[in-house]
Amino acid sequence: MPVRDLASDNQTVRPQFDEAFRHSLKELFWWRRDVRHFLTTPIPAEILTELIELACLAPSVGYSQPWRFVKVDDPRRREAVRQSFLECSEKALHGYSGAQAELYASLKLAGLAEAPVHLAVFVDRAASTGSGLGRMTMPSTLDYSAVMAIHTLWLAARTYGIGLGWVSILNPPDVERILEVPAGWALIAYLCLGYPVEEQALPELERRGWERRTDTGSLILQR
Amino acid sequence: MPVRDLASDNQTVRPQFDEAFRHSLKELFWWRRDVRHFLTTPIPAEILTELIELACLAPSVGYSQPWRFVKVDDPRRREAVRQSFLECSEKALHGYSGAQAELYASLKLAGLAEAPVHLAVFVDRAASTGSGLGRMTMPSTLDYSAVMAIHTLWLAARTYGIGLGWVSILNPPDVERILEVPAGWALIAYLCLGYPVEEQALPELERRGWERRTDTGSLILQR
Repeated sequence: MPVRDLASDNQTVRPQFDEAFRHSLKELFWWRRDVRHFLTTPIPAEILTELIELACLAPSVGYSQPWRFVKVDDPRRREAVRQSFLECSEKALHGYSGAQAELYASLKLAGLAEAPVHLAVFVDRAASTGSGLGRMTMPSTLDYSAVMAIHTLWLAARTYGIGLGWVSILNPPDVERILEVPAGWALIAYLCLGYPVEEQALPELERRGWERRTDTGSLILQR
Repeated sequence: MPVRDLASDNQTVRPQFDEAFRHSLKELFWWRRDVRHFLTTPIPAEILTELIELACLAPSVGYSQPWRFVKVDDPRRREAVRQSFLECSEKALHGYSGAQAELYASLKLAGLAEAPVHLAVFVDRAASTGSGLGRMTMPSTLDYSAVMAIHTLWLAARTYGIGLGWVSILNPPDVERILEVPAGWALIAYLCLGYPVEEQALPELERRGWERRTDTGSLILQR
């Protein structure tokens, strides 16, 4: 059902979320993954549009809706972003040594060359929507709103079998220049989207031995 | 199904997400809401534990899992946080004038007095997990990881009929002091959780005329 139908028709019938839905939602959280191995198969345009519409249902501070999306199709711009990634990743490699450096160098950290869709997500720090409500003492909540839009898009994509990879090994001012975005827009994430080569229940960084899952109990304090 | 069962049993059977699930997920996004009107009915402890376990399935930069949760039960600490909110909200009110100031003053911006659960979420900026992978050029991705954990918890809570309200009208150093958190922990969000007084399809800020939904088309550029 298109997003706008939910908007117009469904405002009074509150939905029921049952045990079966909760189980599937948990599976979605569990199988989401940050994907770096993509097929080049295109994503239908109407699915991408729907994913962005769903992303816009994310929470935002003061209802500011500060998220901005840039679909990057120009091969020269894509290549310029990929060069920025390669340079940043090369620099990062120098921060590691020994076996960790070898492991880092062997990881595939972005699918920029293969992913059919490049989607850059920005926050418009100059947005007047929301009139500043809720962000006087914690201004980063504006950026966090864009992050939750990305996470919404990520989950929705996975329900269509589409993988998403968040590329953060980039220099934001480079990307802002390459994409010629309006003044006041700040890069939050550069996303690769496409159908994954394989589905995995565990993060690649766990399977490859970079890091282990933390025990949840150790992350909770009581006060 | 508990989170750990998914972990141990289900790693090779990839889940199917069908049209019915996608429809319910859209309804979840649509009906999520930032709740400020809570019943005082307690939340079962096992549900809160599960929500936090699900939150820990969120994406994190370099698999750093930097989210930290503080369950605030002490009435004196809760009251100190509420005082911080009242002071910050009073200051924010002075930034508005005329009808907007009147509207601001009439909005209920937090349910701190009624919500049965207060959950503060921090990022551990000193976390060594992930070994810095992916955050050399965009260090805020560590904070963003905690934001996605919050968003995961928010969605999961709603499937149990539990509402969440994100209180950002707070002074982070005050909250860090009130809750005596370890050095290096920075406040990302102070959350109220509880059963909502009513379910709503539209944000309160839209219903009360503070802000309108932005047309999605205006938020997308092509490059």
